[in-house]
Amino acid sequence: MPRSPDSGPLGALGEFGLIDRLRRLVPAAGPGVTIGIGDDAAVLQCDGPVVATCDIQVEGVHFTWDLCGPEDVGWRALAVNLSDIAAMGGMPRYALISLALPAETTPATIEGIYRGLAEIAGAYDVLIVGGNISRTTGPLIVDVTALGSLDGSRHAVTRAGARPGDGVWVTGTVGGAAAGRFLLQHPEVRVPGAAALAAAYRRPIPRVQAGQVLAERPPSAMIDTSDGTAGDLLHLVEASHVGVRLDEERLPRPEGLAQAARAAGLDPAAWALGGGEDYELLFTADRGFDARAAAAAAQMDVPLTRIGDILPEPEGRWIYRRGGQRRPLAAQGWDHLSAT
Amino acid sequence: MPRSPDSGPLGALGEFGLIDRLRRLVPAAGPGVTIGIGDDAAVLQCDGPVVATCDIQVEGVHFTWDLCGPEDVGWRALAVNLSDIAAMGGMPRYALISLALPAETTPATIEGIYRGLAEIAGAYDVLIVGGNISRTTGPLIVDVTALGSLDGSRHAVTRAGARPGDGVWVTGTVGGAAAGRFLLQHPEVRVPGAAALAAAYRRPIPRVQAGQVLAERPPSAMIDTSDGTAGDLLHLVEASHVGVRLDEERLPRPEGLAQAARAAGLDPAAWALGGGEDYELLFTADRGFDARAAAAAAQMDVPLTRIGDILPEPEGRWIYRRGGQRRPLAAQGWDHLSAT
Repeated sequence: MPRSPDSGPLGALGEFGLIDRLRRLVPAAGPGVTIGIGDDAAVLQCDGPVVATCDIQVEGVHFTWDLCGPEDVGWRALAVNLSDIAAMGGMPRYALISLALPAETTPATIEGIYRGLAEIAGAYDVLIVGGNISRTTGPLIVDVTALGSLDGSRHAVTRAGARPGDGVWVTGTVGGAAAGRFLLQHPEVRVPGAAALAAAYRRPIPRVQAGQVLAERPPSAMIDTSDGTAGDLLHLVEASHVGVRLDEERLPRPEGLAQAARAAGLDPAAWALGGGEDYELLFTADRGFDARAAAAAAQMDVPLTRIGDILPEPEGRWIYRRGGQRRPLAAQGWDHLSAT
Repeated sequence: MPRSPDSGPLGALGEFGLIDRLRRLVPAAGPGVTIGIGDDAAVLQCDGPVVATCDIQVEGVHFTWDLCGPEDVGWRALAVNLSDIAAMGGMPRYALISLALPAETTPATIEGIYRGLAEIAGAYDVLIVGGNISRTTGPLIVDVTALGSLDGSRHAVTRAGARPGDGVWVTGTVGGAAAGRFLLQHPEVRVPGAAALAAAYRRPIPRVQAGQVLAERPPSAMIDTSDGTAGDLLHLVEASHVGVRLDEERLPRPEGLAQAARAAGLDPAAWALGGGEDYELLFTADRGFDARAAAAAAQMDVPLTRIGDILPEPEGRWIYRRGGQRRPLAAQGWDHLSAT
């Protein structure tokens, strides 16, 4: 007896039936898509250079079902990739979605993931042009590849261009995702701004518009803060072969972070420096940017904060505390391979 | 005490140390790569339309360590994607690699996978331009996204263009991967051509050159035989809204297939029709192609076999056996979601 795909196991629907259902949930056709979901491969019109990245979300490593709903998982899986495109100064345009599903996954879960994907794809005019679905004996996995365009008259903004004398800047606030994760794990802790902190964890906002505004007045180097402010700044200064002074007290922290950190028994700076998963843009710019920063922040509708200075390499890489104590800049971030 | 990355667990090396090691194993820089592995995203020069696809290999679903070595897994993971690009008439150029690794994965396994990737990437002039590595509590997963180019003067070859009167053609032979899988599981079975059958399973040859030759004299429709000849032909005729007559005895079978099938207690046609994972090109072409097929086969250095005829849709979709018995064409293929 055929079982209803809504109540039955995945196998009753099969890969092709499921793909057919899911393609109707997401923005799949649109400008530039010659061939989208449903053939061996997609065929896309790309004007100028293509910016390409892939990033994975593994249940139990990058998310857990007690803290995230399926829609959040879909949102996050695409958000982290859009953030990578934005960090190059690119404009995200297309995405491909790989799902590996445990046998017990319900159609409601899969469709929830796709609704979350559709929500963020719609918000950023990204078209879902392909993907595949497989079963797995392990945790649920969503692997996303995002493709973006780069205005042909511009260069991509890499991690490698910071120069001594540049300022170090960051969009938005940092540490919010880590605080939100803690608050979702500890609902008994009440702090101001808790809902915004939870959203920072569940539904990170990729700084696509900010990346576009910045790309017009190019930063000397840029990276997104997926691994934590300190860890990502270290990647940037290593790639640029420069030193740095990061002023810990200048790190822009969201409302409620300090209270949540106290409840967790942590120094709030630990989350701001190493919490990870904030997906803000961390960039360097020459002194001339100081005078233009306010206008840029208004144009991108996101605060910009100068958090440090690039130094010549021999001067080292330091985190300064209030009062002038300093310690070496080290990755305090979130390594999805070695984190346990 | 720091442990040697060669003997220690993955965590001792970390994601970034590992990525740095792996990027040296593969062809990563070359024509068209403005920015490759190591930044937030790759920046690629693509002339004309971009052909994009992603396909996943899950341990225990798509491969098992008793039948495949790490090098085979790397080879297969890229091969299946190159096959998808070839099936659109595209030329593969770039790939991004997502790895999800169980904690017990050794550096030797990861480097083996990358050596396999490097081998096939080198053979097809594909550059590995990005990727990510994560741990997982489940099986090892390699998810690959491949990007290709399409000569701007050509259209992509879709599944949807078959017309009544067209012939149905296939490159190479079918059923070999399934026979090879069986022989690897049953080393006591000796058949002629066993090594080639095992290689067909472990190291499928994507028909990139054949796809390019065919794209010059475009087939009316094309697909690759990842799910099995019958299942993929069904996808093609459904997309084209046509009927079909597939002649079972015309299916080109590799040496040793019949003997291996007998040892397995199967009709050899079961593997030729539904074995899956052959990654041949299955295409349709008008009658004029019959006279040109031999020259095309010589140019691509792969046999071409006409295995059936496209019919008007109302005449139905059939598999004919020798003697004229027929049965409905049905997916007998390999569904990685419902297969157990």
